[in-house]
Amino acid sequence: MSSFSPIGPVVGIVGAGQLARMSQPPAIALGVELRVLANTPDESAARVIVDTRLGDYRDLGDLRDFANGCAAITFDHEHVPTEHIRALAADGHAVHPGADALVHAQDKAVMRERLTAIGVPCPAWARVSSAEDVSRFADEHGWPVVLKAVRGGYDGRGVWVCESAEEVAEAFTAGVEVLAEAFVPFARELAVLVARSPHGQGVSYPVVETVQQDGICVEVLAPAPGLDPEDAAQAQRIGLKIAHELGVTGLLAVEMFETADGLVVNELAMRPHNSGHWTIEGSTTSQFEQHLRAVLDLPLGSPAMTAPVVVMANLLGGDDPDLFKRYEHVFAHDPGVKLHFYGKEVRPGRKIGHVTAFGTDLEEVRARARHAAVYLTTGEYA
Amino acid sequence: MSSFSPIGPVVGIVGAGQLARMSQPPAIALGVELRVLANTPDESAARVIVDTRLGDYRDLGDLRDFANGCAAITFDHEHVPTEHIRALAADGHAVHPGADALVHAQDKAVMRERLTAIGVPCPAWARVSSAEDVSRFADEHGWPVVLKAVRGGYDGRGVWVCESAEEVAEAFTAGVEVLAEAFVPFARELAVLVARSPHGQGVSYPVVETVQQDGICVEVLAPAPGLDPEDAAQAQRIGLKIAHELGVTGLLAVEMFETADGLVVNELAMRPHNSGHWTIEGSTTSQFEQHLRAVLDLPLGSPAMTAPVVVMANLLGGDDPDLFKRYEHVFAHDPGVKLHFYGKEVRPGRKIGHVTAFGTDLEEVRARARHAAVYLTTGEYA
Repeated sequence: MSSFSPIGPVVGIVGAGQLARMSQPPAIALGVELRVLANTPDESAARVIVDTRLGDYRDLGDLRDFANGCAAITFDHEHVPTEHIRALAADGHAVHPGADALVHAQDKAVMRERLTAIGVPCPAWARVSSAEDVSRFADEHGWPVVLKAVRGGYDGRGVWVCESAEEVAEAFTAGVEVLAEAFVPFARELAVLVARSPHGQGVSYPVVETVQQDGICVEVLAPAPGLDPEDAAQAQRIGLKIAHELGVTGLLAVEMFETADGLVVNELAMRPHNSGHWTIEGSTTSQFEQHLRAVLDLPLGSPAMTAPVVVMANLLGGDDPDLFKRYEHVFAHDPGVKLHFYGKEVRPGRKIGHVTAFGTDLEEVRARARHAAVYLTTGEYA
Repeated sequence: MSSFSPIGPVVGIVGAGQLARMSQPPAIALGVELRVLANTPDESAARVIVDTRLGDYRDLGDLRDFANGCAAITFDHEHVPTEHIRALAADGHAVHPGADALVHAQDKAVMRERLTAIGVPCPAWARVSSAEDVSRFADEHGWPVVLKAVRGGYDGRGVWVCESAEEVAEAFTAGVEVLAEAFVPFARELAVLVARSPHGQGVSYPVVETVQQDGICVEVLAPAPGLDPEDAAQAQRIGLKIAHELGVTGLLAVEMFETADGLVVNELAMRPHNSGHWTIEGSTTSQFEQHLRAVLDLPLGSPAMTAPVVVMANLLGGDDPDLFKRYEHVFAHDPGVKLHFYGKEVRPGRKIGHVTAFGTDLEEVRARARHAAVYLTTGEYA
């Protein structure tokens, strides 16, 4: 490192994926210096952040070296061991979210226990450790049963939707702790993103609809089309309540099912979230800026939308690694669409970027986002 | 440098000031890798761009090393010697703007000759080399006479407004070439920002009003309030005509006077410009993204405004170097205001950042921007 004298505070992000990468634009604007802990120098965020440190997020020594000099520490992912987070806090570091909050995003059983205790609607659930446990659970709640790895699941991995007792075995071969949940017959999936600062201020973004394929979010519609205003307010209350009760600092994304009987909470994440990427152009304060403000305990920014309708479509890698050659058509076709590439190697099915369109008419805006996403990833005209 | 394999093309920016710094957010989004040529590693852009090279923009060897591997070369400032730009182009590099265009932003006499030749309205002007030349010019055009250094002027430096023959001497003590211009009695100052790509596409942003104090822009109002639509269209036509006739590639900012007799062109810049900082939040395509698209010969983005009224206020350094402590009040007071710090050392009068507010009512939006700017730089409530 050279002899930089920071103008603003240094925020350390453990992990160097696309969430850390997309934090760099608001950090540049705010004069906040980002530092990332990367595994390799060619990770998504490491390519665009000068103060990249190489190390292992599972190693407390590496974390301590990394944290030295940071005004706040936060995370690109949920995989840092809880005890290491406690150790950093004991060293005197401002870690957001703290270990007591983050454990609810790391451990689905702890999350279910806590949400149930504070009266947040969840699917029926139980800890299970054998196929027999699952059968007993199904006797009470019926098939299908959704089995989830208690820790470490991501983008559909670590989740098994079992239609019958025959399909249960796979979940137990992985050798991980497993949670059983009743399958929720839902109309659609929603998400609400809230931010909470250490001094207790909270804000909520508009509720969005997330469109999933094979357990991966492919599209986000903001605001959730046709959502009853009372349900929207209820979703925001649930988000703010969870943030408050769990002591979340920074962002909290709450994924929910919309059902005939109301809203049911599916998952939590405590960091910028795929369901909030639309806020980069679509909100006065992007989720990435909001997270930085929250972890620095600065007053939060307005979550107001900048356009009536915003649609984000994920780019999932195809067979062709060279997407740049497709910019020409996409930009000529639609001068208003916004591209975001993550600087990651293109691999089939991998989230390599997203596109955002905004305007006033949902069908038109959605068609624009979809056209750009399909063309960029496949070269085909959608 | 490590073994980065760029996903997108590398764009090299000569110079590492705030214009290069503010180009990094759209480069991150587009997956374009920026490289900057900096004088020192703590310059504004060097703090946020991984591929920072140290060197001298006046040294052709340094420029050649820098350019090697770049898909396009562009500039943070106008000070690179014309002959070096020609040499880079002769080496086969795509340099935007090219030397034949850029010379009009480097040399005010060449600019005046060319604009006069293509029929763009300018003040009366003449090359002068003595106080006697200036007196003869004043005999014809009256006092005051505006004397300008032909090369190298910036933010009011290199400009002398002379009320009488007694005030002329200073301009000639600097030992630089001097241009005399008739003083234009103007109602206000306007600016139009256009982009032109190598394949010839052109777009124009809405015309803005620039508010100046002591030759430095302090505020930009977008769109220019109460501007006659025909004058606005005329300003845009002038901008696009100059870009076309001069063969500009990338951005062109045209500063103009609004007078009783119509529009008169004051200055040109061929790069992102202070009068366009409002586009970061206020336009579908920021000027920084637009410049990258233009120099890469990609189709240009929509210059449409995202709100009816946008106001940008510059932050000029005061006596206090610690501005970060003032964020708390500014963010609590106005959750919608956007801050941009340049990561530069605070020195009195230096442009160290800007703030942007947007909304629907000009007076309200302008008051918000002014409140944030005054408080951040002085700690006083405006």
